[in-house]
Amino acid sequence: MSEGPHVAARMDDIAPFHVMDILARAQAMEAAGRDIIHLEIGEPDFVTPAPVVEAGVAALRAGHTHYTGALGLPALREAIARFHATRWQATVDPAQVVVTPGASGALLLALGLLSGPGDEVLMADPGYPCNRHFARFCEARPVSVPVDAATGFQLTLDLIDRHATPATRAVLVASPSNPTGTAIAPGELERIHAWCAARGIALIVDEIYLALTYDGGEHTAARWDDVFVVNSFSKYFLMTGWRLGWLVAPRWAMPALERLAQNLFLAAPTPAQHAALAAFAPSALALFEACKAELRTRRDFLLPALRDRGFAIPVTPHGAFYVYAECSRFTSDSQDFARRLLEQAGVAVTPGIDFGRHGGDRHVRFAYTQPLPRLAEAMNRLDQFLQT
Amino acid sequence: MSEGPHVAARMDDIAPFHVMDILARAQAMEAAGRDIIHLEIGEPDFVTPAPVVEAGVAALRAGHTHYTGALGLPALREAIARFHATRWQATVDPAQVVVTPGASGALLLALGLLSGPGDEVLMADPGYPCNRHFARFCEARPVSVPVDAATGFQLTLDLIDRHATPATRAVLVASPSNPTGTAIAPGELERIHAWCAARGIALIVDEIYLALTYDGGEHTAARWDDVFVVNSFSKYFLMTGWRLGWLVAPRWAMPALERLAQNLFLAAPTPAQHAALAAFAPSALALFEACKAELRTRRDFLLPALRDRGFAIPVTPHGAFYVYAECSRFTSDSQDFARRLLEQAGVAVTPGIDFGRHGGDRHVRFAYTQPLPRLAEAMNRLDQFLQT
Repeated sequence: MSEGPHVAARMDDIAPFHVMDILARAQAMEAAGRDIIHLEIGEPDFVTPAPVVEAGVAALRAGHTHYTGALGLPALREAIARFHATRWQATVDPAQVVVTPGASGALLLALGLLSGPGDEVLMADPGYPCNRHFARFCEARPVSVPVDAATGFQLTLDLIDRHATPATRAVLVASPSNPTGTAIAPGELERIHAWCAARGIALIVDEIYLALTYDGGEHTAARWDDVFVVNSFSKYFLMTGWRLGWLVAPRWAMPALERLAQNLFLAAPTPAQHAALAAFAPSALALFEACKAELRTRRDFLLPALRDRGFAIPVTPHGAFYVYAECSRFTSDSQDFARRLLEQAGVAVTPGIDFGRHGGDRHVRFAYTQPLPRLAEAMNRLDQFLQT
Repeated sequence: MSEGPHVAARMDDIAPFHVMDILARAQAMEAAGRDIIHLEIGEPDFVTPAPVVEAGVAALRAGHTHYTGALGLPALREAIARFHATRWQATVDPAQVVVTPGASGALLLALGLLSGPGDEVLMADPGYPCNRHFARFCEARPVSVPVDAATGFQLTLDLIDRHATPATRAVLVASPSNPTGTAIAPGELERIHAWCAARGIALIVDEIYLALTYDGGEHTAARWDDVFVVNSFSKYFLMTGWRLGWLVAPRWAMPALERLAQNLFLAAPTPAQHAALAAFAPSALALFEACKAELRTRRDFLLPALRDRGFAIPVTPHGAFYVYAECSRFTSDSQDFARRLLEQAGVAVTPGIDFGRHGGDRHVRFAYTQPLPRLAEAMNRLDQFLQT
């Protein structure tokens, strides 16, 4: 007689993305003929630029369809290291670079290496929801530290010190942050780094939006050689669907990371790795910079437009392509607000509850991943929606 | 003062692939001018056929570079379900298909869903080394069950029943098996299925080599709707580097698998998914069948050639592209044997210790992933090597 299927306890803690419900409903409405403005998905609307696509095409036709080594193509690891030097003046040894299946793969490698049962990983709430799920998948305890406008929605040394316990194994910082677009102050990160280093606690810095910083400098944590730095070809490099990212790791960690990568992934996708080699050419970088300029223009339109309409955005988002807007003037239930905004106005946004438990019900995230005329139309629809 | 970096306990149990040492040494010897015959890597020598490559090219140029849904392109999930029907007469609902980043992704999803701390997962030794590491990564205990020629190097109901405990959560069968190429008898798998179903124990069947069965029928476990079936575009479909596989799962598991896939991967690579749509066209299938016929010819050459030279291969490998050869007439240290074979004869093979602790020191794996003339040359070199 069957006792029924057993499911691992972790599954109770791995939540779905509420935005997927919004997306599914939006797509159903579109199929029924409604015009929907998609501001819900964390993905640029730009397709991968031609130089990168054509490098992928050339690689495929040249028969580059076999596995690469688990750490990635040597030429790509070198190009990534050079990019850290030329763009960010950080010295990275190619031997410290792991090419991964998206930043997702990099986060799984880092947390799989560093955390297990009984261990704690500190991270900001609100934050990228997968982070706490990666830690939970590894049977570690994600410790979500509430952050707000007072600290630019970032961890501080004081917050870390107050939430750390003897079980703390890693501190995860994302800068600029998803969903808030806010960056951590370089001095604060430096203090956090010193604090972690003194305690043998690993510092993981998610820099997937670093190259999409619109104001102020782009400060990479890879300038320190004992930090785990996660990055991606998805955002600045516009290669989301290719599934390619990287991890810069301390030298001591590389043999273990290689073993993990061999076993968990075998390797990152080969056509994507060859295509990414073309992403560092000056002509390709010029295209990425043009898209970045367009994103900045959109931010400069959307930010005051939302503030004018009564959304509270106390900290200017300096990077990424998100505005995390407090909507408590209109609702105390962000999921309901997002649903009604979609149904009544045809504007899809992400409810804040996807990003944690701290104030998520009073925030929604607008992703400025649509052209300016569509953003303007979204604001018109928002006006009508808020008047009804 | 630093206490030094903390590493998760799991890393003590996640072994490197010894074959990677062989490969690295082989590549160094090649760089120094030696001619090496590569029989060590589990990857066909054929590149991805043109119809699939060109579908990938067309997808890239059409701008299919964004994320897909976490479960994969609906058209691909339908094509995979149809393939189960047309090739294997198994009814699979597309809603039960998850497209994954390689079979690696499918195994991580299945074991992540089913197993955690305190849980046990039964699997054969020798077997694919990543299997025990996936279970360990999930903090479950991989229970490696020694198997030998008497059971065709496969689990049997009797073996499972003897090794099961109240903590057993899943049984993992791979057929045809890596490294042995041997298949499980359909009747035995049916008994195992009934036993698992009666106890609420999950049955996971790795069928990544199923379409590469040279003798006898191809019996898919996907004909039962309560089994987790892992498959891949890497082997039969010759798409290794694209990193694409799939999982057929029970209906009850799909919402949880979708959550896991969202968090662990976001999605499988988009260009690969579009390319794979072309892999089911009759013209593409004809090319795969031609490569399969070539692999069978190689097996029919290599198998008697190795037996004639004194390797014991008591069970004919009916599928995959491996011969798991007992070499105890020549050595009791397969790693040393593989090293000397490489150094002295320029033939790279995989030591059996990569596949488990049961008899691995007395076996080596030959992958027939080189054309017949190279296999013949390898046998000549083997003759000279064994005479010295």
